[in-house]
Amino acid sequence: MKRIFYFVAVMLLTLQVQASGKLDKLSNKSKKCMECHQKTSPAIVEMWGASKHFRGKVGCYECHQAQATDKDQFMHHGERISIIVSPKDCSKCHSHEVKEFSESHHAQAAKILGSLDNVLAEVVEGNSGFVTPAFPEGNSAAAVNGCWQCHGSEVKVLKGGKLDPATWPNTGIGRLNPDGSRGSCSACHSRHKFSVEQARNPENCGKCHMGPDHPQMEIYKESKHGIAYYANKDKMNMDNGKWIPGQDYNAAPTCATCHMSATKDMPVTHDVGLRISWNNRPAVSIRPEVSDKKLGLPGQHINWKTRRKNMKNVCLSCHNGSYVDNFYTQYDALVELYNEKFAKPGLKLMAAAQPLLNPVKFSNELDFIWFEIWHHEGRRARHGAAMMGPDYTHWHGTYEVAKHFYAKLIPKLKKLAKEAMADSDAKVQKDGKNLKKVIDEVLNQENHKWFLGKMSDKERAKRKKNAEDFKKRYEK
Amino acid sequence: MKRIFYFVAVMLLTLQVQASGKLDKLSNKSKKCMECHQKTSPAIVEMWGASKHFRGKVGCYECHQAQATDKDQFMHHGERISIIVSPKDCSKCHSHEVKEFSESHHAQAAKILGSLDNVLAEVVEGNSGFVTPAFPEGNSAAAVNGCWQCHGSEVKVLKGGKLDPATWPNTGIGRLNPDGSRGSCSACHSRHKFSVEQARNPENCGKCHMGPDHPQMEIYKESKHGIAYYANKDKMNMDNGKWIPGQDYNAAPTCATCHMSATKDMPVTHDVGLRISWNNRPAVSIRPEVSDKKLGLPGQHINWKTRRKNMKNVCLSCHNGSYVDNFYTQYDALVELYNEKFAKPGLKLMAAAQPLLNPVKFSNELDFIWFEIWHHEGRRARHGAAMMGPDYTHWHGTYEVAKHFYAKLIPKLKKLAKEAMADSDAKVQKDGKNLKKVIDEVLNQENHKWFLGKMSDKERAKRKKNAEDFKKRYEK
Amino acid sequence: MKRIFYFVAVMLLTLQVQASGKLDKLSNKSKKCMECHQKTSPAIVEMWGASKHFRGKVGCYECHQAQATDKDQFMHHGERISIIVSPKDCSKCHSHEVKEFSESHHAQAAKILGSLDNVLAEVVEGNSGFVTPAFPEGNSAAAVNGCWQCHGSEVKVLKGGKLDPATWPNTGIGRLNPDGSRGSCSACHSRHKFSVEQARNPENCGKCHMGPDHPQMEIYKESKHGIAYYANKDKMNMDNGKWIPGQDYNAAPTCATCHMSATKDMPVTHDVGLRISWNNRPAVSIRPEVSDKKLGLPGQHINWKTRRKNMKNVCLSCHNGSYVDNFYTQYDALVELYNEKFAKPGLKLMAAAQPLLNPVKFSNELDFIWFEIWHHEGRRARHGAAMMGPDYTHWHGTYEVAKHFYAKLIPKLKKLAKEAMADSDAKVQKDGKNLKKVIDEVLNQENHKWFLGKMSDKERAKRKKNAEDFKKRYEK
Repeated sequence: MKRIFYFVAVMLLTLQVQASGKLDKLSNKSKKCMECHQKTSPAIVEMWGASKHFRGKVGCYECHQAQATDKDQFMHHGERISIIVSPKDCSKCHSHEVKEFSESHHAQAAKILGSLDNVLAEVVEGNSGFVTPAFPEGNSAAAVNGCWQCHGSEVKVLKGGKLDPATWPNTGIGRLNPDGSRGSCSACHSRHKFSVEQARNPENCGKCHMGPDHPQMEIYKESKHGIAYYANKDKMNMDNGKWIPGQDYNAAPTCATCHMSATKDMPVTHDVGLRISWNNRPAVSIRPEVSDKKLGLPGQHINWKTRRKNMKNVCLSCHNGSYVDNFYTQYDALVELYNEKFAKPGLKLMAAAQPLLNPVKFSNELDFIWFEIWHHEGRRARHGAAMMGPDYTHWHGTYEVAKHFYAKLIPKLKKLAKEAMADSDAKVQKDGKNLKKVIDEVLNQENHKWFLGKMSDKERAKRKKNAEDFKKRYEK
Repeated sequence: MKRIFYFVAVMLLTLQVQASGKLDKLSNKSKKCMECHQKTSPAIVEMWGASKHFRGKVGCYECHQAQATDKDQFMHHGERISIIVSPKDCSKCHSHEVKEFSESHHAQAAKILGSLDNVLAEVVEGNSGFVTPAFPEGNSAAAVNGCWQCHGSEVKVLKGGKLDPATWPNTGIGRLNPDGSRGSCSACHSRHKFSVEQARNPENCGKCHMGPDHPQMEIYKESKHGIAYYANKDKMNMDNGKWIPGQDYNAAPTCATCHMSATKDMPVTHDVGLRISWNNRPAVSIRPEVSDKKLGLPGQHINWKTRRKNMKNVCLSCHNGSYVDNFYTQYDALVELYNEKFAKPGLKLMAAAQPLLNPVKFSNELDFIWFEIWHHEGRRARHGAAMMGPDYTHWHGTYEVAKHFYAKLIPKLKKLAKEAMADSDAKVQKDGKNLKKVIDEVLNQENHKWFLGKMSDKERAKRKKNAEDFKKRYEK
Repeated sequence: MKRIFYFVAVMLLTLQVQASGKLDKLSNKSKKCMECHQKTSPAIVEMWGASKHFRGKVGCYECHQAQATDKDQFMHHGERISIIVSPKDCSKCHSHEVKEFSESHHAQAAKILGSLDNVLAEVVEGNSGFVTPAFPEGNSAAAVNGCWQCHGSEVKVLKGGKLDPATWPNTGIGRLNPDGSRGSCSACHSRHKFSVEQARNPENCGKCHMGPDHPQMEIYKESKHGIAYYANKDKMNMDNGKWIPGQDYNAAPTCATCHMSATKDMPVTHDVGLRISWNNRPAVSIRPEVSDKKLGLPGQHINWKTRRKNMKNVCLSCHNGSYVDNFYTQYDALVELYNEKFAKPGLKLMAAAQPLLNPVKFSNELDFIWFEIWHHEGRRARHGAAMMGPDYTHWHGTYEVAKHFYAKLIPKLKKLAKEAMADSDAKVQKDGKNLKKVIDEVLNQENHKWFLGKMSDKERAKRKKNAEDFKKRYEK
């Protein structure tokens, strides 16, 4: 009976919040929380005091309250609470944002962790040595401290509502929560201020979008956009409720500006993929509707042209149409260059090499070489072009791709083929011959024949003439 | 007739601007531009509204106006304009700055693009697949999205005044403009505020001066100079017209402070080379007057001692003379160490290896190894020492140089020599013997004989004694 | 007599400062200094004018005064001064801080320079070509511009009180000063403002704590802590005298917050090791009391549990106990994974390889490979986990460790063993067999047998089941 009463009370509270957007006064339960926490962990209480939640009288209890049926509930000084405030909890007030987020790639980020191919962190780098109460057979500490911190853990609840230490602390964006919801709003809206201002800072995205395989943060810093931001941060009006470029600020865009925030024509979105027209994650870039379909997301019905139109709408706040169109022509050309010259031939070469390699993934040096070409360097080139960071496009990108393709991948494949052809086993001989054939095919492609010294006289002459014409330009 | 009238009107306008430094009121033509652009691309208009151009009544039309003879002119809502505002256009008011800039290395930055040796981005990484109206035979998207964005494109005008998408958007510092002028003022003075404040931010230079081959931005951040800047940015008085260290600010220098801005004794300069006493770009560092001569620049008559004196004048704003002199002694010693121990022997070794290598450049792994030793790592060491970033000098610099010299270059050259000496071809045998001889000569130099285990007993004893003496220091 | 009088005067001055914390008025001697220096190096005088020293009337002379017995004293416009203001000088007023600092690892930083093993910068990268008056036999410019700038030089005084250019400018944290004291307060409290505010900036620590071998600065930037700092720098109250998290600020911690500054329960410390519970410097992580014992520091009596308790006290300003405890469980697991899977087997493998390697250190490629595994990549993994930068833990850390262990170290050791076993020399054969045996032992360990394709069916089944269970999670 008490339970039903309690449930109704919570429902009423919820409705009240949804209706008015704020509560009349801070609840006595929240006041009680604060009495202790002001002493034990004062900074949390202060941060909350600087938040919009404070102004709306949404206190500790309103977010941390739990029901007896919640997996992670426990009694704490007479109140039933849980540690994790999940997107489901947040959706009581922020249902629109949570719905959008739930339809995004972000919410699916933990999916890679359950893949059989997730061999790197679990097997190659790791072991099963990190034994915790919820995982008597152990986890890999490399996965827990690495992958899971960005992709999200599957949070496991221990007796008494405590959380398993392999799975929490964790604010990975695709976290699987005890209540079945996905994600972690505090991945971007950090505790306990939860400010939109901080989420608009580029560094916020940089917790995960950085490093050798997706250096978006580094590229942004190199780009004109980042330069303008760091020079003008104090003019960015970052804490404004409405935050529309050309209305509320004009000095620079941040990640949020282009990928999430409102323009004069478009609303805010928490589905970060809706303005992205290439998915540069795979070895060969694909269109976002294709990857959305694989993940079963509603975005499968929103094609890349619509998404590009969305992004152009942001661009046009500060740039003219021909600028924006020309930019996309440049970017598309780079993606195509990488796809056609390196990614597709690379996949073909590695497929031909496969029968000759040790079947255990990442036990061959070639596995690492190819993996870095597409997963690290090829992405850097494409992301660099997407966000106009020329050094990432070239020196960290296409230069590294080409260097490792010609000076590592090809020589090592050649050696593999040669040794196989000299093998006594007929099957191996045959696989070696086939690999040799594929290498020859690839190197004789228009894109690669320079490597064989087969640049045509015509082409050589053209290159020479271009250079001469160019030099004349300086004699004017 | 109308044309002459128009021309005279523009001349008068120009003279008026030059005479007074500002116009009386915003022109009707500019007002008309704004009527639309406030709606279509509002942030541009707002940025301009925050600029000194606004205060001087220099509006859209004053900069974007074109003459019928301009290659890139087109009619836009009844007015003849062009998209690109070139240094020549800017020089109508800022003639002194443009003249200085035109005499700098910056203005020559696109020159590398027309080199026959510019094989990396065009051939190795790229292809001719990026076909645009102005380039039916195509360009390399790696060059367009990479090199050209810093070095500058040769802007091509299409019918109707539109710009070819391979060549624009582009704000490369050495851009070749349709009107024959070189450079892009907005490379540093970003549209549409064109502020000197932003150009004084280190990030502004960091668009190009970063990355594996010239990490000036990263080195600055590591240096005491950068540390002081980021701690005290709000005390830097960055938007002051006059900006003299020791008068208008004192907390830290930015790139501009040392390389461009005024001191109490020297004026501002837009020729960034006038305070630089080493050119660390080539494999072996040279003096700037030598490279200026190669480029036909007036700087050929300004020797490195004068330039160093200029830089010391900046240093003395905050440091004493003995500090500055000692710093240069340290820096020079590092340049000499790199030049003598690695650069000169490296060139000699590669010259001896050349006849045995595949003649197609960058088709040998050794091409990449040697290229990175001097072009990436050797520069990092020298730039690191120039700007006092010890980790760039050592870990990213001399450590990488030495590692690749001894653990990559030498072993691969030895193998090449050994295989050649065993070859059946007499010419190859001879080249192999010669390479072997050069390797032996290099490794027996005082600098390298440690590698052969030939450190003399005397030297070994000296090293031991030094270590013992040093340890005693801790026993005090 | 005059000398004694002078000495007494200085003592009185010193006492006066210590007693009152400030002087009554600026001394005439300091006024005299300023008369010139305001003209010759104005920024120094201005910075001092913004310092607490100005408010306390501690001027140029009070710090730079010297005694006739000081090694580096010289007469300058009639006053006996020295250039270097050492920690001993600073201790006249700041005795407590200098004492703490002197007991820290920081004060011992130059110790590595006198090591016989300090072969990299002196021999491999360098030579003895940097000859200066104090070093007629020369130093390595790579050491002077690299190592010494962070670790500290041994400052040598030339005739007339000038300082040898190889040894100064230098603000290395472990500098050996002419007066016998160690360290350089201005390493962190930069001249001539000496502010605590700047020392609280993360960039301040980043002068040395960055780069491939200890990227603490980069990790901080990736972490939630750094993100919150950069978003909220203006709310950090950085120049407050008292600076206690949860009292004076709450937005974010900087390096100083966690490692040095006061909490509501703990005082400030200038011994940065007192809150660190792992020493991740060596190949295998050890406890700080162990390394303190090696260095003869008083910290040998403070065990890691006490230090961890100290750090947890900081964490609790913003986090709850279970959060903090769980974090440490994650961190410890990563350290153990690295130690057991890679560091200990790596040391064993290299010991077995040693007799077969060229005895000259760093003349074998294997020397570099193993060195980077533990000194660069293994540290990045451990530091990344310590400070919650998941990309540094994984992509820059364990991924690189594993890649180089399996794709470089093991194959090259195998080749070495194989060649040795085929050698005609019996001793070499034996060493080869032993190396082969150790390789086999290591690869057959539970941690490594995946590499041999020996993952058990049970384990494979478990991995498969886990993946399937995980996928079901998404079907809910």
